[in-house]
Amino acid sequence: MTPATLAEVPTPALIVDVAALDRNIARMARFFAEGACRLRPHVKAHKTPAIARRQLAAGSCAGLTCATVLEAEAVAGFCDDLLIANEIVSADKCLRAAALAGSRRVTVAVDSHEGIDALAAAARAAGVTLGVLVDLDVGQMRCGVLPGAPALALAARAAAAPGLELRGVMGYEGHVQPVRDRAERTAQAQRAMAALVGTAAQLRAAGLPCGIVSAGGTGTFDISGRVPGVTEIQAGSYALMDTDYGDVGVPFEQAFFVLGTVVSRPAADRCVADAGHKSATKDHSLPRVHGIDGATVTSLNDEHATIAIPPGSRVRIGDRVRLVPSHTDPTVNLHDAFYAFEGERIVDVWPVSARGYGRA
Amino acid sequence: MTPATLAEVPTPALIVDVAALDRNIARMARFFAEGACRLRPHVKAHKTPAIARRQLAAGSCAGLTCATVLEAEAVAGFCDDLLIANEIVSADKCLRAAALAGSRRVTVAVDSHEGIDALAAAARAAGVTLGVLVDLDVGQMRCGVLPGAPALALAARAAAAPGLELRGVMGYEGHVQPVRDRAERTAQAQRAMAALVGTAAQLRAAGLPCGIVSAGGTGTFDISGRVPGVTEIQAGSYALMDTDYGDVGVPFEQAFFVLGTVVSRPAADRCVADAGHKSATKDHSLPRVHGIDGATVTSLNDEHATIAIPPGSRVRIGDRVRLVPSHTDPTVNLHDAFYAFEGERIVDVWPVSARGYGRA
Repeated sequence: MTPATLAEVPTPALIVDVAALDRNIARMARFFAEGACRLRPHVKAHKTPAIARRQLAAGSCAGLTCATVLEAEAVAGFCDDLLIANEIVSADKCLRAAALAGSRRVTVAVDSHEGIDALAAAARAAGVTLGVLVDLDVGQMRCGVLPGAPALALAARAAAAPGLELRGVMGYEGHVQPVRDRAERTAQAQRAMAALVGTAAQLRAAGLPCGIVSAGGTGTFDISGRVPGVTEIQAGSYALMDTDYGDVGVPFEQAFFVLGTVVSRPAADRCVADAGHKSATKDHSLPRVHGIDGATVTSLNDEHATIAIPPGSRVRIGDRVRLVPSHTDPTVNLHDAFYAFEGERIVDVWPVSARGYGRA
Repeated sequence: MTPATLAEVPTPALIVDVAALDRNIARMARFFAEGACRLRPHVKAHKTPAIARRQLAAGSCAGLTCATVLEAEAVAGFCDDLLIANEIVSADKCLRAAALAGSRRVTVAVDSHEGIDALAAAARAAGVTLGVLVDLDVGQMRCGVLPGAPALALAARAAAAPGLELRGVMGYEGHVQPVRDRAERTAQAQRAMAALVGTAAQLRAAGLPCGIVSAGGTGTFDISGRVPGVTEIQAGSYALMDTDYGDVGVPFEQAFFVLGTVVSRPAADRCVADAGHKSATKDHSLPRVHGIDGATVTSLNDEHATIAIPPGSRVRIGDRVRLVPSHTDPTVNLHDAFYAFEGERIVDVWPVSARGYGRA
């Protein structure tokens, strides 16, 4: 049974402020309503079809970005242009991606001959065309080929592979997203985009198709998204936000929280809530406390947040507390649903459909 | 469809070596077959009924320990003695615990008047008896009342509450579990157990019942479990193990891994696997690589493990890699199932039934 109010939600729980979410989504859509570059919201941040639908409905979108095939499957019912912005090489996953391409446009990142061959085999087996983007390493040092000759060689191979359609290049400047100094972030993002746009020009000069130049994130949407030649931005965290991007200073509001209940009040300066590391990650930093002045999370164990509270604080056992996560994506991934709220009222429950591994 | 072999498992995936798991379980059961203290395996580490069944079947068990009501619900079908070793104070959760107490023994930790009142109200509403243990802070500084007078006062209140039955005391020496020096770990655990056993004696001297004295974990099972007066040990991680407890030096084998696929091979000294932070936590440390000599995880992003590999390493795109998690409990919590394997064969799929928040 859906709880009627926040007070009735079983804790720990993921809660989303619908009005704040919609303001974030509208603000980003307005930015991309001007200029040639489009937005391709990244599903990985929320893994939630209900949120992806709102992002598409707000406009300015080229389609959706997905990190996994499961994410693509979860949003395929209402999106006709999907980018899987990671390498997939296993036959089962390539076939699942190809199955989606029968009735919508599907594009996948590649950075190796093996990846091209696996996707081409799946596309041919399914009798479809899969699009590919050559994934460039623009400084993140994770996946991706280097700009220039290696990218050109891979693009030529992709363009020649039956079953595949080369559609362009991708280069995620992930290393730039958390840079707090705006001038420094701008300089680094522009360097990364210069490498990406330059490679796109080389592809075109070589007679290879390159309609898509995809990059960006919440930290660089208004930098990379204004570089001439970049055609789409893969931002995700802006919809929900976290303390990390809040500290970077991007113009979006905190729209989600992990709700806990105070279960212990063992000392005057300490309380313990039932929202621990299994409900909010600490890979970026500890979550912050919303709504109790001067309170800070001092440790986050599996099922417990230990919270230091100021002298005289009237926190009582049974009180609800909101934690502000430091990292959206992996925190959402811990939960099976969002409780969508307006004021104190629960207005909907949104399944986090694209989370999890090992589902039957 | 269940994959037939490890090579067919979609990655990332949680895989468990059944033979190693059974050896760990048997070894722990043998230890508790001698002496007066019993084992009460902690479900929180694996959240998996199939593993809890094997722990009970191995013998020497007083029942099971659970961190949450959901865990208790997941194992209630085959266990007649459940301890919820955390405070629960919300009416809905107290009622769910009481519902379980109709047909089996259920005991819950308490550390406040409010907690006692909430559990007593639920027990009376359900027409059942709920057992309680007074939770002592034996040095962890999380939940729990202090030993001595505060514990006695709370115990007296619990004993007098209609619907509740005071059954004893609990004191988790969680702060001692990771201490690597055996002598230091022994000294600290014995100090903690002295406080716990001493308080148990005070309860009995005051005419209060105290049949259960519950404590311990994988790091202290053979220390706290041999302290006279301690009646049961709540160890959990021993069944699956992780690098953290491996470094502590407890006598159990690594029995589970996160399986990934190499999706990118961007440089001679680097590969990238599709098993990231959404499939293995890094709250204790980065996972280690099993099966590639000299390989180390250098960063763990949401969907990617970046792995430094030695010169000349023959790692290829499409290869499977096994990561050894640093922290069992939150890593398992990321997955919906274990793929149980023997050699290369998948012999079963075990749902991680007690994971997740926000399920309908």
